[in-house]
Amino acid sequence: MTGWVAIAGLGPGRADLVTPEVTAVLAEATDVIGYIPYVARVAPRDGLTLHPTDNRVELDRALHALQLAAKGARVVVVSSGDPGVFAMASAVFEAVEAHPEYLETDIRVLPGITAMLAAAAAAGAPLGHDFCAINLSDNLKPWEMIEHRLRMAARGDFAMAFYNPRSKSRPLGFEKTLDVLREECGPDRLITFARAVSTPDQVLNTVTLGSATPEMADMRTVVIVGNAATRRVGRYVYTPRSAL
Amino acid sequence: MTGWVAIAGLGPGRADLVTPEVTAVLAEATDVIGYIPYVARVAPRDGLTLHPTDNRVELDRALHALQLAAKGARVVVVSSGDPGVFAMASAVFEAVEAHPEYLETDIRVLPGITAMLAAAAAAGAPLGHDFCAINLSDNLKPWEMIEHRLRMAARGDFAMAFYNPRSKSRPLGFEKTLDVLREECGPDRLITFARAVSTPDQVLNTVTLGSATPEMADMRTVVIVGNAATRRVGRYVYTPRSAL
Repeated sequence: MTGWVAIAGLGPGRADLVTPEVTAVLAEATDVIGYIPYVARVAPRDGLTLHPTDNRVELDRALHALQLAAKGARVVVVSSGDPGVFAMASAVFEAVEAHPEYLETDIRVLPGITAMLAAAAAAGAPLGHDFCAINLSDNLKPWEMIEHRLRMAARGDFAMAFYNPRSKSRPLGFEKTLDVLREECGPDRLITFARAVSTPDQVLNTVTLGSATPEMADMRTVVIVGNAATRRVGRYVYTPRSAL
Repeated sequence: MTGWVAIAGLGPGRADLVTPEVTAVLAEATDVIGYIPYVARVAPRDGLTLHPTDNRVELDRALHALQLAAKGARVVVVSSGDPGVFAMASAVFEAVEAHPEYLETDIRVLPGITAMLAAAAAAGAPLGHDFCAINLSDNLKPWEMIEHRLRMAARGDFAMAFYNPRSKSRPLGFEKTLDVLREECGPDRLITFARAVSTPDQVLNTVTLGSATPEMADMRTVVIVGNAATRRVGRYVYTPRSAL
């Protein structure tokens, strides 16, 4: 039996946003590996071993998947959203680079609906023109790099989507982010806080940068900042296709 | 009967990348509106009228959808990929803004797998760190804005994904893009050309900026440029989660 690793995106939460490709690969799997709340979204069945693990052990998890596949297992590493956007795909390739004995492993990445696009769809079309995706967590990069990227994105008049805006261990980062954005974009720029998108807990809140506060975001929130042309129409927020 | 408009993303091409949400809304539709090749992906059936239209008539198409919904039709406006990324969602909201009589129309945006994420998954994980999405078409914005955004994205060390890199009507734009990127990022930066991703015609080609040529892209190609840390591991291209 030849093992493989599929790194699959489960989408933002709702079952009807999981692609048939991912559903099919889960039906073939012998093992599912991932962060506890994501593995909990996979239905248990005979012949399937679930391996839920805690946060911040991405490389251990990736190596475990490669080891199981080498023994013939059909392993699905699950991420929420899309596995290639601030999720497990890069961690698996980092593990392969560190352990070249797995270079010939059959690895596939299966895309999913990433949180920023589900959030944008729920709000209207705030990412309808050029945009950036930025992970605001400073676990793996210094704050100075985050600040530099915020300024470059603002000066390029990109719309922006932020992942991991705020956590208990980083209470000040998002406050600093809002300060940088107000300095670069002014107080009238629209900002949308999209919490738990596509789940029963979904909350959308669009305000101006001038009235945005750090408490509007938490770890389940994706934040979208418009470009200079982003505006409201009725209950929607959208960015026109033309420059202004 | 109350009409509605759903703006739905059909994903990059393969049927198993269409979300169940989109499949379900197509089953309820009375009318499907969109660019000819996208409408061709919807199976005809009794009770469903297909309205394929040519390119560059996005606003007419959007207004048509709103007019049909006002008469009670259940209209799905189809885009490839995700409707909120350089596709029909913004066009529909532009039409609503221009025709406020449609402000109360029931409009939903249904996300899809956008081309850059399908391309990234096929290549490995080149968008695994902060990245930008840029539409290289200058139909709706001046080249100077595109060039400025390319420079800001490069100076922020963002990975980049380009939509609409090249067409017969814009033979020189992508050549200028490559020149700007070589100037900002040097000749060794990795660039991936992903053509017709997820279809039987899929071709992936990763080279360095120094050896990239304009002919490597066409209208069916999504282009991904890595950041300074993007590298190959085996047959994959990936960007590590940490800064360098």
